[in-house]
Amino acid sequence: MTDRRGPSAGGLDTLIELMARLPGLGPRSARRAALHLVRNRDALFAPLAEAMAEAARTIRPCEICGNIATEARCDICRDQRRDSALLCVVEDVADLWAMERAGAFRGRYQVLGGLLSALDGIGPQELGIPRLAARALHDRVREVILALPATIDGQTTAHVVADHLEGSGASVTTLAQGVPVGGELDFLDDGTISAALRARRAL
Amino acid sequence: MTDRRGPSAGGLDTLIELMARLPGLGPRSARRAALHLVRNRDALFAPLAEAMAEAARTIRPCEICGNIATEARCDICRDQRRDSALLCVVEDVADLWAMERAGAFRGRYQVLGGLLSALDGIGPQELGIPRLAARALHDRVREVILALPATIDGQTTAHVVADHLEGSGASVTTLAQGVPVGGELDFLDDGTISAALRARRAL
Repeated sequence: MTDRRGPSAGGLDTLIELMARLPGLGPRSARRAALHLVRNRDALFAPLAEAMAEAARTIRPCEICGNIATEARCDICRDQRRDSALLCVVEDVADLWAMERAGAFRGRYQVLGGLLSALDGIGPQELGIPRLAARALHDRVREVILALPATIDGQTTAHVVADHLEGSGASVTTLAQGVPVGGELDFLDDGTISAALRARRAL
Repeated sequence: MTDRRGPSAGGLDTLIELMARLPGLGPRSARRAALHLVRNRDALFAPLAEAMAEAARTIRPCEICGNIATEARCDICRDQRRDSALLCVVEDVADLWAMERAGAFRGRYQVLGGLLSALDGIGPQELGIPRLAARALHDRVREVILALPATIDGQTTAHVVADHLEGSGASVTTLAQGVPVGGELDFLDDGTISAALRARRAL
């Protein structure tokens, strides 16, 4: 059984096949999304095609921190008001955005682009950890804040980053673990509750 | 809280906003999908942008049946080997594709593009049902097969289509309901089991 007849019109089969490779979409939902596009040609399909072409043409990784950028260096690396002695290490650009949305950090970033994984052959070199250590030394970074996921891989990566930063003169910190703002104990996992209990403080 | 910093680079915010309007994606997953694109620029982003531009430029609805096409008439309507006296009515192009994948139908189609819905103000006119009746008469259609969803809206629509086809000379049939091939009774809903029981046949 093939999908040849029908979807083949106008390269729609290619479009569906490529869309199916997006996270969150599979072959079925890609087909549905493509049809939705065809049905909403002027309101959605044409603008989306244009936005995609524009972004694919202009966006690249920042040569310093790995954030997305339209020039060699991203907005944050070019912003002189940012404290370059304060460095926040994140797994992913999405995490950088989450930090920025919180609006509580005015330093700079380093995006690893992943976590250490022996299984997938991702070592410190692949994540640019030696380069991060060199940057900390060169920029005289005062503090490196590790904002990595509170998972086993995230914490392994955090420890390896900390090892590489030894001798750079930067102090290494990590985000506090605890009860999320607005979080009800009843809905929290045991690990979070234990961590919050261990890190309890005087009121 | 806004997403301005970060996603704004290179029109990425526009791209994410448009992608979030696809069925199956929300703001969060659109952000994730956009980042995935940026990270896989050559393997995915560039080809997808190209496929999208191509499809948005060339694809349009077939003027006869509503299937997608790159010319005024779709592949199926132009295929002379298809039996034009046999017409299958489907809700959607996705259903047409499903029928074609099954490979058991060699007639032509009419895509309604939706189902009747008093709530949404979708009447027979909006679905082209009078036009379908005229087509059946004009093409001397022998049989109209209603391959509409086995839902209340689907069955309401089927009855209204059948009413409009009265006097066209076409006999009106509908897909059989029953146990799906490979279906285990244990996993079927009661309605399907009842329908399969009522439609039982001698072995």
